[in-house]
Amino acid sequence: MNKKIILMSVAFCCTHFLWAQTPQLLKVRKHFENNQHAIINEFVSLLAIPNIVGDSVNIRRNADFIMNAMTKRGIQNVQLLFPTNNKSVPAVYGEVMVPGATQTIIFYAHYDGQPVIPSQWAKGLSPFTPVLTSESLEKGGTIINFPTTQPYDLQNRIYARGASDDKAGVMAIINAYDALMKTGLKPTVNIKFFFEGEEEKGSDFLHEILQNYSSLLKSDLWIICDGPVHQSGLKQVVFGVRGDAHVDVTVYGSKRPLHSGHYGNWAPNPAMMLSKLLASMKDDNGRVTIKGFYDDVIPLTEGEKKALAAVPPVDVQMKNELGFSEQEMKGMSLAEAINLPTLNINGMQSGSVGKNASNVITTSATCVLDLRLVAGNDFQKQQQLVVAHIKAQGYYVIDREPTDEERSKYPKIAKVVLSSGYNAQKTKMDLPIAQKVIAAVQSTTDEQVVLMPTLGGSLPLFLFDKYLKATTITVPIANHDNNQHAENENIRLLNFRNGIEVFAALMMMR
Amino acid sequence: MNKKIILMSVAFCCTHFLWAQTPQLLKVRKHFENNQHAIINEFVSLLAIPNIVGDSVNIRRNADFIMNAMTKRGIQNVQLLFPTNNKSVPAVYGEVMVPGATQTIIFYAHYDGQPVIPSQWAKGLSPFTPVLTSESLEKGGTIINFPTTQPYDLQNRIYARGASDDKAGVMAIINAYDALMKTGLKPTVNIKFFFEGEEEKGSDFLHEILQNYSSLLKSDLWIICDGPVHQSGLKQVVFGVRGDAHVDVTVYGSKRPLHSGHYGNWAPNPAMMLSKLLASMKDDNGRVTIKGFYDDVIPLTEGEKKALAAVPPVDVQMKNELGFSEQEMKGMSLAEAINLPTLNINGMQSGSVGKNASNVITTSATCVLDLRLVAGNDFQKQQQLVVAHIKAQGYYVIDREPTDEERSKYPKIAKVVLSSGYNAQKTKMDLPIAQKVIAAVQSTTDEQVVLMPTLGGSLPLFLFDKYLKATTITVPIANHDNNQHAENENIRLLNFRNGIEVFAALMMMR
Repeated sequence: MNKKIILMSVAFCCTHFLWAQTPQLLKVRKHFENNQHAIINEFVSLLAIPNIVGDSVNIRRNADFIMNAMTKRGIQNVQLLFPTNNKSVPAVYGEVMVPGATQTIIFYAHYDGQPVIPSQWAKGLSPFTPVLTSESLEKGGTIINFPTTQPYDLQNRIYARGASDDKAGVMAIINAYDALMKTGLKPTVNIKFFFEGEEEKGSDFLHEILQNYSSLLKSDLWIICDGPVHQSGLKQVVFGVRGDAHVDVTVYGSKRPLHSGHYGNWAPNPAMMLSKLLASMKDDNGRVTIKGFYDDVIPLTEGEKKALAAVPPVDVQMKNELGFSEQEMKGMSLAEAINLPTLNINGMQSGSVGKNASNVITTSATCVLDLRLVAGNDFQKQQQLVVAHIKAQGYYVIDREPTDEERSKYPKIAKVVLSSGYNAQKTKMDLPIAQKVIAAVQSTTDEQVVLMPTLGGSLPLFLFDKYLKATTITVPIANHDNNQHAENENIRLLNFRNGIEVFAALMMMR
Repeated sequence: MNKKIILMSVAFCCTHFLWAQTPQLLKVRKHFENNQHAIINEFVSLLAIPNIVGDSVNIRRNADFIMNAMTKRGIQNVQLLFPTNNKSVPAVYGEVMVPGATQTIIFYAHYDGQPVIPSQWAKGLSPFTPVLTSESLEKGGTIINFPTTQPYDLQNRIYARGASDDKAGVMAIINAYDALMKTGLKPTVNIKFFFEGEEEKGSDFLHEILQNYSSLLKSDLWIICDGPVHQSGLKQVVFGVRGDAHVDVTVYGSKRPLHSGHYGNWAPNPAMMLSKLLASMKDDNGRVTIKGFYDDVIPLTEGEKKALAAVPPVDVQMKNELGFSEQEMKGMSLAEAINLPTLNINGMQSGSVGKNASNVITTSATCVLDLRLVAGNDFQKQQQLVVAHIKAQGYYVIDREPTDEERSKYPKIAKVVLSSGYNAQKTKMDLPIAQKVIAAVQSTTDEQVVLMPTLGGSLPLFLFDKYLKATTITVPIANHDNNQHAENENIRLLNFRNGIEVFAALMMMR
């Protein structure tokens, strides 16, 4: 394809017609086309298995399903990897040793999903009853039947918890290997597979798995498949992730709910107390006002700044798509904003709203704060900065319900529960193996591949560094508008298909 | 009983041993003792019928039950009174014309209840499956069987929606009349019964009933039975109520829930927006900062101030009982605080907390604000002051979901929904008929009867004034710790029994 044609195609923005059509990758695409019903049926069967950590029976059913899918494709040494004293969140492992290969790449994805509230999903949707839609529901898509013989329209989407985060990753990786095998293509590297089962819960036990199986998990590189491609629709290679930790805060009023007429003005109102406390944490420009919150941030390198400058601007497009006119941090682009730590309210509740609202003064108000961290931040220190701020607002801070004695002594009491969490991680963009990854992903598209210093989201990648001294690079595949972590999660089939091609290219990288 | 004995008894605080034992009222008490199982069984059967406005089938079942209870006691002209074009929230009416009586008193209570969230009720409780407990659950009471032959311990409580608010009122009034009839006592006044079916919904249609049946509802006085006795345990007569109106506020972020990692710092966070908005509405001393909020308050009269000064102080006791150390309006007693208008958060929600929390930035945050009003306030004006304040914080205010165009134009959008509401009402404490009411209630106890210028809670008493030019005085009976409007609502049997006696005395007032 000559340059002129490429430019014209870019102008028309038809991603799936653009492709560096190497003979190998054409074979991979053909394999998908010929086997799409079986591939998608299997994916849908996996999506139908609930995958919330804590539901250990179903978590194990997911793991068994994946093991079976790997075994039947000839992947070797398939097994479950367990933490030291916990059988409930196994990782699924498998490997393919390639004669003559000098490098080993582990492909990572996770099969667990975020908690669900089925009632919040759109009409006709249920988290573990996957359905097919003509396109995004937000864009007017409707639920349609899964075709049995007709080819899929790749703009169709599958809606289910885990559809994009991250069972699409698991099945794209497995099917990429399958495509190579079935079409006679040869991997250039030894391939290992590692599918985690508790990522959405915070990967509390991952370090034990990495330590317990450190020799099995030796590699030159981990390719992490999680998160979405760039909002512009361009494929991206990501060199770091933000860290993550949570702070749950509950403030207290009366021990029993009170009639808001008989006690209004006199009984303390926990919802108002929490509002004032939260309002004190950010200024009107969206900057966190907690003392020291930004102090430890390591500035971006010149290379990272350059990469950021090359990221296609998506702010206008995204504001339009998402329906708001002003970003939280005034004057900052999305790409810049994710390079700073955050304090975000995930949820906030006191009493009821809507038809269940009552004329009460509630007994407590609770919020869940999500701290994202960048290079330089220590998650426990960031949590302690929040605690110090709460104390500075006059609160007596405890990590359990207050006693009667404490209630009579302290006017403002906050229960603050700190989650386990983890720090951010970054891989240098100029490593030789990083250049090979970029080249492999670039080989699947004639469009720009976005190079991101960090993903806004979090993965416990520091663990791979800490326990295995391993290098990690993230290659996400999901559509950016996948409703990850929320109701109506979905994957666009084109992204799933493209994912298979990207991983096939990485398995053949030179 | 001589004065010395009375004082000793007060010192021992045994309310139910103290009683001005007029022969008439001794008969009423004896009647209760002899018929307690039948009386309580009937009350429990009524509590088992769900009574949430909107559930019109069950609302009607309640009304039918009450009509039947009245008819079988010989109450005359029993019928349902309907609003003009609404059959779903009838009031139940009945009357007893007494030969020679020159005054007519209407006894009011309501049979509908606040909405329920069954999951929030304590273990073993369900809103419409009444249970008996040994004493208050908060004080260590346990669920016990209803006795079949043994007398009830009057410290026992019945837990159910409506137990205290306000089916106890309905059944105490009916049984007071029944006690007079069964013991040969004679009412001194014509008695009318009026049991409303939509009080907790805001009495939207009450004015139509009052207008449609104005001649049937002619009277010299309405005795309103709703709300609790004084927190000291003393009986009280209340000469006014606060008005009430609501303001529901929803603020908006992205149209779809976003991954808090990928968009944190950049996407606006509705929970933080709402926190800042709410925090702007009150200062740290609990005073509302909305411009003009207290401007229209009519100061208390000298008589009201004197009555307030005689109210036994309960602040220390109540703080101890409720488990907090500092009231919302600093330096103000409970009795003083309820003589001011309020802005109270009934409920507040954005996303989820606890085990359903997800790593998201939510699409919206909602709160329900409860405005209580005192004499001088106009409810619509108070609502508009809140709206003006929200606008002054930079919000574009609408009363529906924002359009895409509005989203792209206004950085801060609030949907503000104003409820219907009503103003406060006050009856002069020095009216002759008011003095008769005080004397009748005082005849049932040797303890002080608390005279309250206003109840903290609200009833649509202005309607009786506006549409019937009627005088209203409130005589509540429920225990103050009844969890009215919340989970675990309950009535102490002693309060129910005392209520029967008080209404019997009022029916015989001179």
